[in-house]
Amino acid sequence: MQMKMSKILSPFKIIVFSYIAAMLVFSVLLFLPMSSQDGVSVSYSEALFTSVSAVSVTGLSVVNVSETYSSIGIFFLAMAIQLGGIGVMTLGTFVWMVLGKKIPLSQRMLIMVDQNQISFAGLVKLMRGILFVALGIELIGAFILGTYYLNYFDSTLEAFYQGAFGALSAFTNAGFDVTGESLIPFVDDYFVQLVNILLIFAGAIGFPVLMELKEYFSSKNSNFRFSLFTKITTSTYFIVFFIGMIGLWLIERTEFYDGMTWHQQLFFSMFNSATARSGGLATMDVSNLTLASLLLISGLMIIGASPSSVGGGIRTTTLAVMFLTIRSFAQGRSDVKVFGREIHQEDRQKAFIVLSVFVVGLFASIILISAFESSSEVALMAIIFEASSAFGTCGLSMGITPDLTLPSQLTLMLLMLIGRVGLVAFLFSIRANEKKTHFKYPTERIIIG
Amino acid sequence: MQMKMSKILSPFKIIVFSYIAAMLVFSVLLFLPMSSQDGVSVSYSEALFTSVSAVSVTGLSVVNVSETYSSIGIFFLAMAIQLGGIGVMTLGTFVWMVLGKKIPLSQRMLIMVDQNQISFAGLVKLMRGILFVALGIELIGAFILGTYYLNYFDSTLEAFYQGAFGALSAFTNAGFDVTGESLIPFVDDYFVQLVNILLIFAGAIGFPVLMELKEYFSSKNSNFRFSLFTKITTSTYFIVFFIGMIGLWLIERTEFYDGMTWHQQLFFSMFNSATARSGGLATMDVSNLTLASLLLISGLMIIGASPSSVGGGIRTTTLAVMFLTIRSFAQGRSDVKVFGREIHQEDRQKAFIVLSVFVVGLFASIILISAFESSSEVALMAIIFEASSAFGTCGLSMGITPDLTLPSQLTLMLLMLIGRVGLVAFLFSIRANEKKTHFKYPTERIIIG
Ligand SMILES: [K+]
Ligand SMILES: [K+]
Repeated sequence: MQMKMSKILSPFKIIVFSYIAAMLVFSVLLFLPMSSQDGVSVSYSEALFTSVSAVSVTGLSVVNVSETYSSIGIFFLAMAIQLGGIGVMTLGTFVWMVLGKKIPLSQRMLIMVDQNQISFAGLVKLMRGILFVALGIELIGAFILGTYYLNYFDSTLEAFYQGAFGALSAFTNAGFDVTGESLIPFVDDYFVQLVNILLIFAGAIGFPVLMELKEYFSSKNSNFRFSLFTKITTSTYFIVFFIGMIGLWLIERTEFYDGMTWHQQLFFSMFNSATARSGGLATMDVSNLTLASLLLISGLMIIGASPSSVGGGIRTTTLAVMFLTIRSFAQGRSDVKVFGREIHQEDRQKAFIVLSVFVVGLFASIILISAFESSSEVALMAIIFEASSAFGTCGLSMGITPDLTLPSQLTLMLLMLIGRVGLVAFLFSIRANEKKTHFKYPTERIIIG
Repeated sequence: MQMKMSKILSPFKIIVFSYIAAMLVFSVLLFLPMSSQDGVSVSYSEALFTSVSAVSVTGLSVVNVSETYSSIGIFFLAMAIQLGGIGVMTLGTFVWMVLGKKIPLSQRMLIMVDQNQISFAGLVKLMRGILFVALGIELIGAFILGTYYLNYFDSTLEAFYQGAFGALSAFTNAGFDVTGESLIPFVDDYFVQLVNILLIFAGAIGFPVLMELKEYFSSKNSNFRFSLFTKITTSTYFIVFFIGMIGLWLIERTEFYDGMTWHQQLFFSMFNSATARSGGLATMDVSNLTLASLLLISGLMIIGASPSSVGGGIRTTTLAVMFLTIRSFAQGRSDVKVFGREIHQEDRQKAFIVLSVFVVGLFASIILISAFESSSEVALMAIIFEASSAFGTCGLSMGITPDLTLPSQLTLMLLMLIGRVGLVAFLFSIRANEKKTHFKYPTERIIIG
């Protein structure tokens, strides 16, 4: 009756369980009386929501963090964000080491060596690399923002506290804030916005891309070439960023932007397009935007960031494979090519699965929340926005989340968990062991569409 | 410089151009002064919208048909519906005969013979079969409804006119009405509703299924087996129908259904779930339903009916392949099996393409219409509902279509056209000739989701 642990718990199951465990642990920590400010009482459901949102680096919140949590509470929150943000890659690597399983593809690509050549030492080096890059970027961001914030805050401590939390929140794309109103106080400070945009990019572009960039700049290897993954995800990430920026400007130039200077219009468009992809920080109350912009931002949140990054959504590569497949079909080809390489059939199937699960899951969640909120007349746009924000682990909000009923908040928590783990990993985690069947059914064609 | 016609115009291009041509012709006919009632003037954009809606058998309308069009106008309208409804299969067959091209798969399956054995005589027989089945069902429906309507209408002529138009509208899933208020007058007449539901089913289940059923019942061939297509589309069609019915009942039982008898609740749930799949007839003003129900109905409209039927949407088979692919993945298999058969890789790719194009197209249309209507504060739910209705060629309406601006109405027209032609056929129509490349790029894996 005994089975090996590795048989029962696949690496993906362990990742999912680790996230759930971390969410539960931090919910208890944030529920402790010492975590909240004097005179403020936090309910367990509020602590759980905050913990799920932090570990999944989403940033949706049912409370105002700066008015609710004590220094200790905010320290726990920062820990939860840090763990969630850089957890996904290191955790996966750790699991591999413990179970001695075949290394998952994502990590094989990350270190760009053949799996047979991977040694324990190599993995430790990899984990050290991830931590080095992540903490390095966060420290640089904290130093720049902290120094600059000396202009804003009276005490050096407060300036660097704000700078450090801000850099952590931006790089991990967590989108939490301790200013009490996100980046709205910096609506006219383009330097702060640019630093935040760069930190959001760094977190959302994906660890493999960062590692390859490090390799590219540090090694003297003239044969170095960027992987197909890096090329696809980077180009898709920035193409969608520019489309979002231009789209927002086209929609709002005669509406919300009416009467603004060109640089105000530019920065609102640029910041919203960047933050929608998973950042979740805000320089304005997004509720002031028109319906078309809110839908566009929901679309950007749904697309999200790179796989193996701190961001969520269907991910850039899924979107790219969608469009490349359509293009191939329209060109009369059955294979899918880009950058002089062919996309593997299995990756195309994964993209189809991710898209299907995301569409069905998001649609079902929106219907559920509408049903749960039927008595309170919450606007459909707000429901779509919060659900997209949760599933895309973005964290932008039209402000309804604190007022939702508990079933709706639980739905959002589930979306954040699945959104953070990633749909492929989530499906892998509930997947049975691969079955090899020894016979094949005959293939029969059907009519599609 | 001369090219063969068949090289320039693929069968799919011809189908698309035929639909566009028919829409333009009927727009002119419906614009003629003799087509409208005395004292009523129809603008060209209204005539075009009515024509596009009729030829695409959608049923969305910018005018009240019974108060606008003369007998001649309604005759043109019925012609447009009939042509659109049974056009898709016969037109495809005709194109094949003219061009002598390889018969498209859909028709090969329909007649269940190997393509090499198909003769001209066989094709004529096929077309006759389609017409026989379609007109036969319509005539039976017209007779039953007409006879029954003698209870409702004073003159025999009016009863059979209503019966004939009703049967045509229901079987072709056109959803137009000459009662002036759809089937709302029959809200308590379950016989009329049941006949309409059966006619909607017959049109939406797909011609291949009808032909196979005819074969099954008429032939004494004991070896007859239903095709995989028929099994998948029929089971999916009815599973979704029952889910829709139960879902509507669960949502509305304490809301709109509050205080109704069980049979009223049953028939509202049953009729709405049936009509949403492409019928477009209504026994109530759907605006009275709650947000969650309206979203659920939008989902049903998006799913739609069988391929090669009078219905639209992503089609049953696309949905089935989505779920079967997810199930296979979760079970650890790479092939997709159902009913003892394997789904062909190319059909899985088509399903992915249909889903991608539908999601992106619908989302973009909803954003566009929101932007076009930014000054008039149209509710998002109504925009989502009308766009889903147009793309799914369903025709249910929350009543905003007549009040939309022209750009929004043009967007809906485009959705109806593409929705009617079908996404695969539409993509085929803009597809370049198949290119055989003699070299293969190396395959490189990427990270998805
Ligand atoms: K976030
Ligand atoms: K219809």
